Amino acid sequence: MSQPQPSLHVGREQYHLAWDRSIEPIATVGSGSVVEIDALDASCGQITAASTVADIATLDFSRVDQVNGPIAVDGAEPGDTLEIELLDFQPADWGWTASIPGFGLLAEDFSEPALRITKLGAHSAEFLPGVRIPLAPFCGEVGVAPPTEGARSTIPPDVFGGNMDTRHLTAGTKLYLPVFAPGGRFSLGDGHAAQGDGEVCGTAIETPMRVQVRLTVRKDLHVSAPEFLTLGPLAAGTNIGPYYATDGVGPDLMTAARDSVRRMIEYLGREHGLGAIDAYLLCSVTCDLKISEIVDAPNWIVTAYCPLSIFG
Amino acid sequence: MSQPQPSLHVGREQYHLAWDRSIEPIATVGSGSVVEIDALDASCGQITAASTVADIATLDFSRVDQVNGPIAVDGAEPGDTLEIELLDFQPADWGWTASIPGFGLLAEDFSEPALRITKLGAHSAEFLPGVRIPLAPFCGEVGVAPPTEGARSTIPPDVFGGNMDTRHLTAGTKLYLPVFAPGGRFSLGDGHAAQGDGEVCGTAIETPMRVQVRLTVRKDLHVSAPEFLTLGPLAAGTNIGPYYATDGVGPDLMTAARDSVRRMIEYLGREHGLGAIDAYLLCSVTCDLKISEIVDAPNWIVTAYCPLSIFG
Repeated sequence: MSQPQPSLHVGREQYHLAWDRSIEPIATVGSGSVVEIDALDASCGQITAASTVADIATLDFSRVDQVNGPIAVDGAEPGDTLEIELLDFQPADWGWTASIPGFGLLAEDFSEPALRITKLGAHSAEFLPGVRIPLAPFCGEVGVAPPTEGARSTIPPDVFGGNMDTRHLTAGTKLYLPVFAPGGRFSLGDGHAAQGDGEVCGTAIETPMRVQVRLTVRKDLHVSAPEFLTLGPLAAGTNIGPYYATDGVGPDLMTAARDSVRRMIEYLGREHGLGAIDAYLLCSVTCDLKISEIVDAPNWIVTAYCPLSIFG
Repeated sequence: MSQPQPSLHVGREQYHLAWDRSIEPIATVGSGSVVEIDALDASCGQITAASTVADIATLDFSRVDQVNGPIAVDGAEPGDTLEIELLDFQPADWGWTASIPGFGLLAEDFSEPALRITKLGAHSAEFLPGVRIPLAPFCGEVGVAPPTEGARSTIPPDVFGGNMDTRHLTAGTKLYLPVFAPGGRFSLGDGHAAQGDGEVCGTAIETPMRVQVRLTVRKDLHVSAPEFLTLGPLAAGTNIGPYYATDGVGPDLMTAARDSVRRMIEYLGREHGLGAIDAYLLCSVTCDLKISEIVDAPNWIVTAYCPLSIFG
């Protein structure tokens, strides 16, 4: 499929480090315009294909999860919806996955830093020896200006989008975000070559990404938080064979999620010979967290699903 | 595929109403045996194809979620794992879905009882006019004797299984449960013709179910909670086209889950003309709750996914 000609190109250096409605747009485009964004990885270029785990210790967190933009869309007014048609994602030929001390679902279990650099092929990547992950590229950060004044960290997502880290926001999906500021003020970043539902270690396969999106003002639609329409079936690359699944059961969903991932790490060790840290990173880039039941009080179940097709 | 000849048949009346390791087995079978269980629906026959919403008000909760069994498996000892190969599920030709006051993820929003009786076809059911749900039958209750003495309600699941209400425990899946009592003491019930991840209204398409399982003692495997291996891809009946998805975003996973379902109900109303209660029941039988991200503190995202193929 040939891509439409973009009416705006946003360069790698055109980024900001906070969600803040006072940041002036770098450009204004008409509704329906296609925009191309060339984004550095979530470390803002601090981690490269040559990095080692030592670079995790010196990572400057004030410079992570930058987002490129903001781009105003002509005619967008508070109360409207911005439709973001995700047209195309082109990752770089490498990516990184890290466990960063103090960050991630199992931060208590993994106190040492870890870094894995992965070479990305056209359609898949060998994440660990004999473990091949199909690429399903998207951007973790997709958002608009927040509803209230002030600078907000780009780390937590919110009703205006931001760091949603939602793996099904792949090419072909239409994302709907509520407009809170005139022009909407759209920004994007945090390229992911592959990720599971949850992003449990806190990072995906992080990569620089070239993106095309079509930005359309929807006066007829009013959403209060992110909603989206996928192009087709979910997880087409991984949902092709059996899954192994592990449960966390109990009265707290967060604890249940942790337990489910701990059990998946145990499974990946016992059945596939993976060390705990490798298994943890693998969970983040390919295992999916589902809420199996949330009504049988007082115990809920969160289940981690690993697609066994990755083992070839 | 022809089913193996069962070595034991368990009748509808051979049930118990608590998870309790002191309940004596109704029979003992050899490891590797196939057992056939004929189970009433989760209301233990109180709701029938002729029921009306008035029957929800008089439902005797002390008689719900009965489980058929227990069946001892020769040689199963504490520390072993019981492998339950789910061979076959045959639902009845009808099922029911209810919103029961005080029960369900959105109990605060839906205080009035509701009941929907659905005629089940061989492969699908018209749940609402023009809304066709593919059947993917399984049992909500699958468990073994608990690790400690005393009678426990069959409503909450636990590490020994029980009311897991896990939609991917369909035919072909192998479920692994930890053995806590000699013989394991396996029971099963709560037939579901179709359900989404979460079972958000508290009921699926509830139906009487005839089930065949193969029970095998695994001395070589040690699990601490339910784990399972699916036969193939997940949600083969529904993951065949686009999904619409709605987010809940915030610092509490339970609140985020509620918000995601509220937004899905809003979407189903605005785009598909469904009344709120119909939309809520539909979410329970076909929408899936995923944890999109659980690491970008302090806000997590739970996303409700509705398969649009159900709208024909």
